[in-house]
Amino acid sequence: MNSQSSHVDVVVVGAGFAGLTVARTLTKAGVSVVVLEADDRVGGRTMPGRVAEQVVDLGGQWVGPDQLHLLALAEELGVRTIPQYLEGEHILDIAGRQARHTEDQDLPLQPADLAEFDKVTAELDALTAKTDVAAPWNIEGAGALDGQTFETWLRGATESAAARSVYRQFVKTLFCVEPGQVSVLTFLQYAAGSHGVIHMMSSRGGSQDSIFEGGVWQLAGKMAQELGDAVVINAPVRSIAQTSDEVTVTSDAGVWTANLAVVTAAPPMAARISYTPALSALRDGLTQRMPMGSVIKLHVAYATPFWRAQGLSGQIISDRTVTGPWFDRSFPGVETGCLVGFFVAGPAQAWADRSPEDRRARALEDLTTYLGPEANAPIDYVERVWPAAPWQRGGYTTAAGPGVLTAFGPALRGPAGRVHWAGTETADVTPGYINGAIQSGKRAAADCIEHLKP
Amino acid sequence: MNSQSSHVDVVVVGAGFAGLTVARTLTKAGVSVVVLEADDRVGGRTMPGRVAEQVVDLGGQWVGPDQLHLLALAEELGVRTIPQYLEGEHILDIAGRQARHTEDQDLPLQPADLAEFDKVTAELDALTAKTDVAAPWNIEGAGALDGQTFETWLRGATESAAARSVYRQFVKTLFCVEPGQVSVLTFLQYAAGSHGVIHMMSSRGGSQDSIFEGGVWQLAGKMAQELGDAVVINAPVRSIAQTSDEVTVTSDAGVWTANLAVVTAAPPMAARISYTPALSALRDGLTQRMPMGSVIKLHVAYATPFWRAQGLSGQIISDRTVTGPWFDRSFPGVETGCLVGFFVAGPAQAWADRSPEDRRARALEDLTTYLGPEANAPIDYVERVWPAAPWQRGGYTTAAGPGVLTAFGPALRGPAGRVHWAGTETADVTPGYINGAIQSGKRAAADCIEHLKP
Repeated sequence: MNSQSSHVDVVVVGAGFAGLTVARTLTKAGVSVVVLEADDRVGGRTMPGRVAEQVVDLGGQWVGPDQLHLLALAEELGVRTIPQYLEGEHILDIAGRQARHTEDQDLPLQPADLAEFDKVTAELDALTAKTDVAAPWNIEGAGALDGQTFETWLRGATESAAARSVYRQFVKTLFCVEPGQVSVLTFLQYAAGSHGVIHMMSSRGGSQDSIFEGGVWQLAGKMAQELGDAVVINAPVRSIAQTSDEVTVTSDAGVWTANLAVVTAAPPMAARISYTPALSALRDGLTQRMPMGSVIKLHVAYATPFWRAQGLSGQIISDRTVTGPWFDRSFPGVETGCLVGFFVAGPAQAWADRSPEDRRARALEDLTTYLGPEANAPIDYVERVWPAAPWQRGGYTTAAGPGVLTAFGPALRGPAGRVHWAGTETADVTPGYINGAIQSGKRAAADCIEHLKP
Repeated sequence: MNSQSSHVDVVVVGAGFAGLTVARTLTKAGVSVVVLEADDRVGGRTMPGRVAEQVVDLGGQWVGPDQLHLLALAEELGVRTIPQYLEGEHILDIAGRQARHTEDQDLPLQPADLAEFDKVTAELDALTAKTDVAAPWNIEGAGALDGQTFETWLRGATESAAARSVYRQFVKTLFCVEPGQVSVLTFLQYAAGSHGVIHMMSSRGGSQDSIFEGGVWQLAGKMAQELGDAVVINAPVRSIAQTSDEVTVTSDAGVWTANLAVVTAAPPMAARISYTPALSALRDGLTQRMPMGSVIKLHVAYATPFWRAQGLSGQIISDRTVTGPWFDRSFPGVETGCLVGFFVAGPAQAWADRSPEDRRARALEDLTTYLGPEANAPIDYVERVWPAAPWQRGGYTTAAGPGVLTAFGPALRGPAGRVHWAGTETADVTPGYINGAIQSGKRAAADCIEHLKP
């Protein structure tokens, strides 16, 4: 590809899992494509990093057994999964009480708090069961559910400080926004897409069951390699103009005409492209109302996984620290140990513009609290500040605030003439996950093929 | 101006009241400027329209006696105010009960409901008194106030269906979003900026006290006329790059270098410009979280202001109709009558992509309900669908949802190096109003002059 005009059947905007899946599916069907990626790499919200000479995922990482699109892709491309390390005891420090538990045990809350936690979970599961992930706004009482924050709902659901705090940590970790920034309906949509609340939040058997040997980002690289010259990086798309006959996509790397375009960028990023004719008021309003979550992902490497010798799994969930949750992300076959952790939601919003040194110091302080002084002597540290990344501006996904899905949700998927939408936010299964991105890409590709039929 | 590169001291982005004020203030101080306006006209969220051969404001319209920046500008430029027509009886149709009242009387609610309404107002006023309009996130209990929607707060504040409904109509009319889409803290900020809740919502003596003879939009035109060639329309700014020495602003009408830039577009529109270096995570996150409200403004003209003969003022507030509120906007010295009304919030979100014919029919049906069959025989109709306007994408202002101001608010005004921010959303007085836009422009100009001092 060079910087001159070319014609293809379909221009795909974005080379994350959604865009690459669209392109791959169309190519297999004999449809010509170009994938225009704004960033200097493929993978979108997945990417590799190096820590202590090992390769890690700086973005999306985990997979659950229900995520069949992702598992099938990995199998096809020859990347194996490894179970998330869960041996030993997890630390839970919630509502002023620190306790330990194994993966197989209940959360180590006081019995009354555990009962409240279970009650809240049952209520959410009952609502989740009624939620259509592709059209959550159809749930009975959608207006009331969508017109409040998760924080408001939670305060009404239980008086237990511990149950509330566990759920707040869950919401922060899942959506990378505060419980007071996200609507109940958004929570239900995602839970419905991931087989319910507990499945979505769980490691063993749940959405964080396994990781990929060498990292999930490899799959994007392999798909891009297959597509060869059809993938153009450093090609931010600035405008998309359509007529009744064709669409013209203008990027920093050149101009393409096509029959169709598929935009896979998350809604707030897709809004930064100039469209002619202008998009509908509903679609534009949606893009103003689905902000990216705030997340900074950290890897801290040590000479050994010393916490294992203390009988700990490395999993730490705490409402006292700035960072967290933390998980073991050590590498099979090497001596070094590694913990993966996060600044999520409020802490990520507050710390994204601070220095790496500040964040590293804060992370080590938090880890030392639970793992002792050895935690303060890492051999390496690597971080990815997603809210500062110009082409992603947050992660893992969008988090619609109150009143957005009920009023604007139908604009998530509905095409704008020759411009179709994909991306994990538009998925019919596991929205917000890599698996959802792949599914959305398959759906968009099928829509294109249908549209292109003579 | 032509489409070649030029150098000025300050590039101003946007020729609404904020941008024109910046440019005018700087020009008077001997600072050279260019104002780049994306649209094909100046005025931003004010603009003229014609109905029954009279000129009306399709955007911002009213002024209150406290709005000294706007009143001073109008006096200076020779545009006179006219009191909003308020003779006769207003119609209030709330919670299943229709009643009439004059401007001087209390709302015609049942005594128990009126007491509840007053109680809610007193609670809001007490909170408003503690709110710093320039830093609302400093209020005691900010997290809790900002972590819930106005709808949630209202349900906790009163059980009265009538008091709730009146407040819902107020919030919809003021913010052009549903009470379940906006945070309590956003409401308090705006109320604090406009001398309290009742002042903000009132006509006589309040923020809707008067209109301008010939329309407020004229003031923008007069300011632009003064500035002459320094104002360039059809010049969407696509990118702003800064170094330690200067800023380069690239628009469809050419490239300008300058010492400073002032961006006056509302945050979600400012986000559609590409910045180099990338903006901070906090600023970018803010722009993802301050959507424009949804409003469609309608003028319906009749052969005469027939409602006056019925003893009515033309003011209609109803929770049963799709359109509303409605006000008299007849013209002094002519026989024709005119009503001005709105689709706001949910109705604007739902109706913005429908046809003008549908909206007109709906408006006439609603008016006929209250004013009788004469309302179904207009002589003219004009509308402005702000959410569909590519360079405004809504109005009157932004409406931050829960959790936004507390986490991201400080990024509203803080400059990004050589890029300063203005616009009514950044005002220290009357944010959301034309008066606030002017004040923000004066502040930004003063900041520029300070910055430019040798």
